[in-house]
Amino acid sequence: MRIDGLQYANWSEKIFRQLREGRVDAVHVTIAYHETFRETVLNFERWNRWFETYSDLILKGTSARDIDIARKTNRTAIFFGFQNPSPMEDDIGLIEILHTLGARFMQLTYNNQSLLATGCYEAEDSGITRMGKQVIKEMNRVGLVVDMSHSADRSTIEAADISERPIAITHANPFEWSPALRNKKDDVIQAVTQNGGMIGFSLYPHHLKDKSACTLQSFCEMVARAADTYGVTHLGIGSDLCQDQPDSVVEWMRTGRWSKEIDFGEGSAASPGFPKMPSWFQDNRDFDNLEAGLRDVGMSADEVAAIMGGNWYRFFDDNFGASVP
Amino acid sequence: MRIDGLQYANWSEKIFRQLREGRVDAVHVTIAYHETFRETVLNFERWNRWFETYSDLILKGTSARDIDIARKTNRTAIFFGFQNPSPMEDDIGLIEILHTLGARFMQLTYNNQSLLATGCYEAEDSGITRMGKQVIKEMNRVGLVVDMSHSADRSTIEAADISERPIAITHANPFEWSPALRNKKDDVIQAVTQNGGMIGFSLYPHHLKDKSACTLQSFCEMVARAADTYGVTHLGIGSDLCQDQPDSVVEWMRTGRWSKEIDFGEGSAASPGFPKMPSWFQDNRDFDNLEAGLRDVGMSADEVAAIMGGNWYRFFDDNFGASVP
Repeated sequence: MRIDGLQYANWSEKIFRQLREGRVDAVHVTIAYHETFRETVLNFERWNRWFETYSDLILKGTSARDIDIARKTNRTAIFFGFQNPSPMEDDIGLIEILHTLGARFMQLTYNNQSLLATGCYEAEDSGITRMGKQVIKEMNRVGLVVDMSHSADRSTIEAADISERPIAITHANPFEWSPALRNKKDDVIQAVTQNGGMIGFSLYPHHLKDKSACTLQSFCEMVARAADTYGVTHLGIGSDLCQDQPDSVVEWMRTGRWSKEIDFGEGSAASPGFPKMPSWFQDNRDFDNLEAGLRDVGMSADEVAAIMGGNWYRFFDDNFGASVP
Repeated sequence: MRIDGLQYANWSEKIFRQLREGRVDAVHVTIAYHETFRETVLNFERWNRWFETYSDLILKGTSARDIDIARKTNRTAIFFGFQNPSPMEDDIGLIEILHTLGARFMQLTYNNQSLLATGCYEAEDSGITRMGKQVIKEMNRVGLVVDMSHSADRSTIEAADISERPIAITHANPFEWSPALRNKKDDVIQAVTQNGGMIGFSLYPHHLKDKSACTLQSFCEMVARAADTYGVTHLGIGSDLCQDQPDSVVEWMRTGRWSKEIDFGEGSAASPGFPKMPSWFQDNRDFDNLEAGLRDVGMSADEVAAIMGGNWYRFFDDNFGASVP
């Protein structure tokens, strides 16, 4: 089973076909960064059109059962998430509405301070806000997973502790392997995994050791070490693949409507656009490389299967439905 | 089984308890007249709170199966509908979104011309519009029932013919029994029922012969004649009960934001507010009276059961899911 914990591609029939070539059974797809509620609904609408048009390649995923259906019918189940809480605006009632529409992950922050928590690019991390505590409780109730990929350390640790259900870092790597601001320090990963949560390893070059030149072996050795440290059951892939996106999109991701000035985020003035993907992971057809790489660093077939999809499957199955009162 | 095809009460714990006292298994509840999409979502949110707070009395209904659950657990299943297409604004993609959120009926017009069809108070009825034809097709696809209760005659007959699935007049009576502008002429009811559709008989006094003074016997004789004319399988109740609403609400229903001038609708300057309900149907506890009245005019137990709920149950079961391609 193959499940990718995060992608933000410029979706097209070509990519849907590549998902099938790569035998990807499910993928968590970002459908909002800075969108308002109404703009997010337009994104749901666009996907509804794709589900109708490409019903032979993809289907909407709302529970782990949809992954079983996808596998039986040779399709990919698409699960939705937001990288920022902007779709819920300041209205806690929208959490259940968005869950009903299909949202299954929501980051509490995207780089900046939000109404709920602190993003990883802020100078000060004040932790989970008053509203953030209410929102985590409501997300727990309906089955919308807290994702802290772009959050600051204290906020992430507090979220892991406050949340009564496991949370996720859908796409990031250990800071000790590659000290990017977006990667996660040991105590952060410990807090998430000790509470039953997941980390999806990112293939976005800014999160990789040596960036685009990162070797498959280095990446897979990092995964193997993480399995030893945090337990293999808490690990998955969250490729952060942003295939076919123009560079204007990474600018929107970074600045949205919050700034009139350019913000290079993980990039720089010299290299402001999307970075070049590593040679061994260009698109959805390259999951075979990852699987071979994990075996080559000595992981067992069971461990590799768990990381490539089994763990996400279990996590989806446990966390996408309403909490049992 | 008891199913009411339309109510617009000022909902409260009191009314939820009265639904149980009256053994109402399901009710189609209006949640929008002139609301925009976002305002309609706020109404869904308010109901989500009620489903959480009064989970011992009510549950959200999306398919006929929820009526079975309601009956097994001694609760009332609440199904949602709109009396105007305003919630979908000018965006056909919102039809599936609103269906996903729980909408199961949508009137193409409320008294006035809409983007889709002509309302029953317009001087000219130009039939289903270009957009209206597209919208009916999309409503058919997702399983959102076309309701023509407040539409003009030609528009209603065209909708019944264009729609590939049965449509409904959820709340109105035969014009020949009580010649109100909102009641339906024979050819209109024929067009709807011949295509497998339903009419729900209204207990709103402006739709009754002799209004608030209408006798139970007169009402039930009208139902029995309709059974002879149109076939009993096409008949149900759509009480149009607007319990506990202040008169300001009937003004909103009639004028929304479309007019700066007062419009009395079915009322008049002398009696602008909600009319007094007939003595034998004051609220949800009075369905026993209706049932007894129908038996008293000579209908069989099976016919009475079909009209009180069996027919709506079958209609809900057939028409609330996606069409089979």
